[in-house]
Amino acid sequence: MSYDQIELPDVSGLSVGIIGGTGPQGRGLAYRFARAGQRVLVGSRSTERGEHAAQELREMPGVHGVVEGGDNAFAAGADVVVIAVPWEGHGATVAELAPLLSGGRIVVDCVNPLGFDKQGPYPLRVEEGSAAEQAAALLPEARVCAAFHHVSAVLLADPEVDAVDLDVLVLGDDREAALQVQALAGRINGMRGVFAGRLRNAGQVEALTANLIAINKRYKAHAGIRVTDL
Amino acid sequence: MSYDQIELPDVSGLSVGIIGGTGPQGRGLAYRFARAGQRVLVGSRSTERGEHAAQELREMPGVHGVVEGGDNAFAAGADVVVIAVPWEGHGATVAELAPLLSGGRIVVDCVNPLGFDKQGPYPLRVEEGSAAEQAAALLPEARVCAAFHHVSAVLLADPEVDAVDLDVLVLGDDREAALQVQALAGRINGMRGVFAGRLRNAGQVEALTANLIAINKRYKAHAGIRVTDL
Repeated sequence: MSYDQIELPDVSGLSVGIIGGTGPQGRGLAYRFARAGQRVLVGSRSTERGEHAAQELREMPGVHGVVEGGDNAFAAGADVVVIAVPWEGHGATVAELAPLLSGGRIVVDCVNPLGFDKQGPYPLRVEEGSAAEQAAALLPEARVCAAFHHVSAVLLADPEVDAVDLDVLVLGDDREAALQVQALAGRINGMRGVFAGRLRNAGQVEALTANLIAINKRYKAHAGIRVTDL
Repeated sequence: MSYDQIELPDVSGLSVGIIGGTGPQGRGLAYRFARAGQRVLVGSRSTERGEHAAQELREMPGVHGVVEGGDNAFAAGADVVVIAVPWEGHGATVAELAPLLSGGRIVVDCVNPLGFDKQGPYPLRVEEGSAAEQAAALLPEARVCAAFHHVSAVLLADPEVDAVDLDVLVLGDDREAALQVQALAGRINGMRGVFAGRLRNAGQVEALTANLIAINKRYKAHAGIRVTDL
């Protein structure tokens, strides 16, 4: 079926929790989901910082979803849980939250395992193949997808940007969960969620962020990608 | 500088050789370069098949460049040499042509090291990091770039398709060579050549082809990518 013929589920009633919701990517996604009208739970290692970030988000232009804040365990109580922590803390954070992320919960990993040196970013080798596969290994009872790797934190956070025009590549082994994540991406103005394969093909999607950073540097841009012919 | 401000060199006078010019991707690229008016040298393992492919290309609609055919060594005499062989034969073919690809010759690797099983395509681990880096290791006297991974062979070969609307990610450690490859991509109607980093970031660009194949399967498409905000 063509892209337009695939019916996506109604996810407007789902709450979205952001693990690492005070970092640039997590905060930007929280803002966009709140603007789209989702209920958002902003998580942080510190309850106080999570609450503070939520309060700031509630005051931002266009927010008409409910935004609440707390620690990461609080955010892990949402219907869909987005993992947006730095790669360095990924394994430990996910392992710590594992008992909370059971019962087929949808977990969306958007972490990019990158290293940086004088020549810029480069992909780190991940034993499990990708951050998403590491999360899947640590969360056997969750339905892990990978998505939102290529969204510019700058554009997400800018209230003047009405539409964030790009495609979100969504990967996952559970078709139903992947459809919900695609639908969730589509709730953000300008975005489409495009199914882009199983989790074993997440590594290169995460690593492609290094190329987008190189593009941003060369062209002074906030690059994302669109899939053509869809 | 923004994308439009970067001046690309005039490459209209450069000949383009295609190593593996009788395969789907090589033949499709040969056709598009010939349509764009470049002189094209079609290479094959067999001189006869290379000549035959060139003759067929000369008779295709819109071709107004000179197209000649021969073996891969013949094609390796072009100004810019595109490597479009199957991954299985990549190392051996490149090593064999190495003596011909000296003197700073521009070599464009567009090979995707993928495996296929019941669940579809997946990236193969390449010791050097990527096909392009393997080529660079085998060709110390050439200027190796990576590009043209995400072009649909079907769209390239279809004479009814006037513009192939997508961006070509160009990677390379030699800035001057990368600019020429970007300019060459821009000679094909609909395409832009976008600099996307050094060769060490080529692996994920090659591997992303697995995701595009997954997208094609799910959506019955011939997917490519566009870089947004450029």
